[in-house]
Amino acid sequence: MPTPFHTTRFVEFADTDMAGIMHFSAFFRFMEAAEHSLLRSLGLSVFKEIGGEVITFPRVAASCEYHSPARCEEVLEIDVTVDRVGTKSVTYGFAFSHNGRDVATGKMTSVCCRVPHGGQPASIPIPDEVGTKLRKLAGT
Amino acid sequence: MPTPFHTTRFVEFADTDMAGIMHFSAFFRFMEAAEHSLLRSLGLSVFKEIGGEVITFPRVAASCEYHSPARCEEVLEIDVTVDRVGTKSVTYGFAFSHNGRDVATGKMTSVCCRVPHGGQPASIPIPDEVGTKLRKLAGT
Amino acid sequence: MPTPFHTTRFVEFADTDMAGIMHFSAFFRFMEAAEHSLLRSLGLSVFKEIGGEVITFPRVAASCEYHSPARCEEVLEIDVTVDRVGTKSVTYGFAFSHNGRDVATGKMTSVCCRVPHGGQPASIPIPDEVGTKLRKLAGT
Amino acid sequence: MPTPFHTTRFVEFADTDMAGIMHFSAFFRFMEAAEHSLLRSLGLSVFKEIGGEVITFPRVAASCEYHSPARCEEVLEIDVTVDRVGTKSVTYGFAFSHNGRDVATGKMTSVCCRVPHGGQPASIPIPDEVGTKLRKLAGT
Repeated sequence: MPTPFHTTRFVEFADTDMAGIMHFSAFFRFMEAAEHSLLRSLGLSVFKEIGGEVITFPRVAASCEYHSPARCEEVLEIDVTVDRVGTKSVTYGFAFSHNGRDVATGKMTSVCCRVPHGGQPASIPIPDEVGTKLRKLAGT
Repeated sequence: MPTPFHTTRFVEFADTDMAGIMHFSAFFRFMEAAEHSLLRSLGLSVFKEIGGEVITFPRVAASCEYHSPARCEEVLEIDVTVDRVGTKSVTYGFAFSHNGRDVATGKMTSVCCRVPHGGQPASIPIPDEVGTKLRKLAGT
Repeated sequence: MPTPFHTTRFVEFADTDMAGIMHFSAFFRFMEAAEHSLLRSLGLSVFKEIGGEVITFPRVAASCEYHSPARCEEVLEIDVTVDRVGTKSVTYGFAFSHNGRDVATGKMTSVCCRVPHGGQPASIPIPDEVGTKLRKLAGT
Repeated sequence: MPTPFHTTRFVEFADTDMAGIMHFSAFFRFMEAAEHSLLRSLGLSVFKEIGGEVITFPRVAASCEYHSPARCEEVLEIDVTVDRVGTKSVTYGFAFSHNGRDVATGKMTSVCCRVPHGGQPASIPIPDEVGTKLRKLAGT
């Protein structure tokens, strides 16, 4: 069973919409922030410089299923799992809950990219030191 | 073949992130705006009052696959298809492109809900007048 | 000298723009979140129900002066002062800094409003229990 | 009297908050988008390359006064004036209205900056070709 990484997130007034609940797009910002927390917990960063090159992880796919509304001032529990570590990409799973109530589940696949100064991101194999840490979290 | 609904969207500076491209979560706001344009083109509204009740369409699932970056000041072409009209829900497909280049594809499933004053949304069958119009767009 | 309320805020990737720094509009979300933290520290809430009525504080004015950029993964220090408590409104001051570097200063004036179910906000005198607490923070 | 630049903006569902109106921070995104429209109408761009250098206009101050709520699906009228063209900075004024109703007024001061590749923005005198066009709009 994969070891989940756990974090929390406070739902702010600015995250809500006129339906009185958190806007559905905010879950994607929360997933990204949780992914970045996980990366930092491994000693990485959003824009990690390894061997003089900037390594970053733009996403190629993101999805969310909404089970119950998140509301202003709720503290959401977020469990993150590393579902798959490929040669160049990582897939994360996210489970949002509040006081034991299932709120949403999500998935995100990020691709390891090298970004030259002022240039286009180009996908590359995940560096060993990063891949090893991610695979450990994945339990594989 | 389903008739696509077509709209465009200008990528603004505020939609970008420090990677120099449109933030991945902005595609979800753009999908929602396109869905609402489609609903307005059918004479509906985001919060439609039918027979004294407010009808709205919160989403239960949303996903996006990213194929190439969208950049500031680009006008994205957005084709929307009505992929499935169920008793209570609608599934839309979205294709984003720029000058013929494939940018992203997405999917969103919205559930028809009745919202009583100050109360919780409750899912209901899609009203006939709405369902008929959506099914016509779906080509089914 | 007014007693400052202090909070912090982590700058996320989604808060940045293509200039590589935090987008200027994000400071306003951060000010609002800090204001709401201050209100909660007084036992209030964003939507406070007092005597069967919902009391909220929409803003009538907001401003920010930018002195140096805020960057991704920085933890901003935010000092909030209650600059003025009027009969119906409160003016807050905000000072953002990072490691002693001045980042921005802001101001926000919020008006106490009663919101009837499904109706328009109407400004009202700040309830005594709230006004007393705010004036104490203002040092007046 | 300064010649106003005019644009419009549709209020989307994602711009609203749980108070049922457009979130106050959205006005700042709208002001920036209107400023950029004005710059494009002068043949400029958000990131303008002049003589091999990238010229951009980060803001040093922004403010907004809120007079009445903006609501979902409203088309806001936005009048932009160029209030002051300094050596290095421009100050814009914004007036938001809907069907003749005053919604909000704002102000924004942007500073002309040169951005070297991967470096910090440094303020510079506004290039002549840009300054001339802005001063003409300012009527000075």
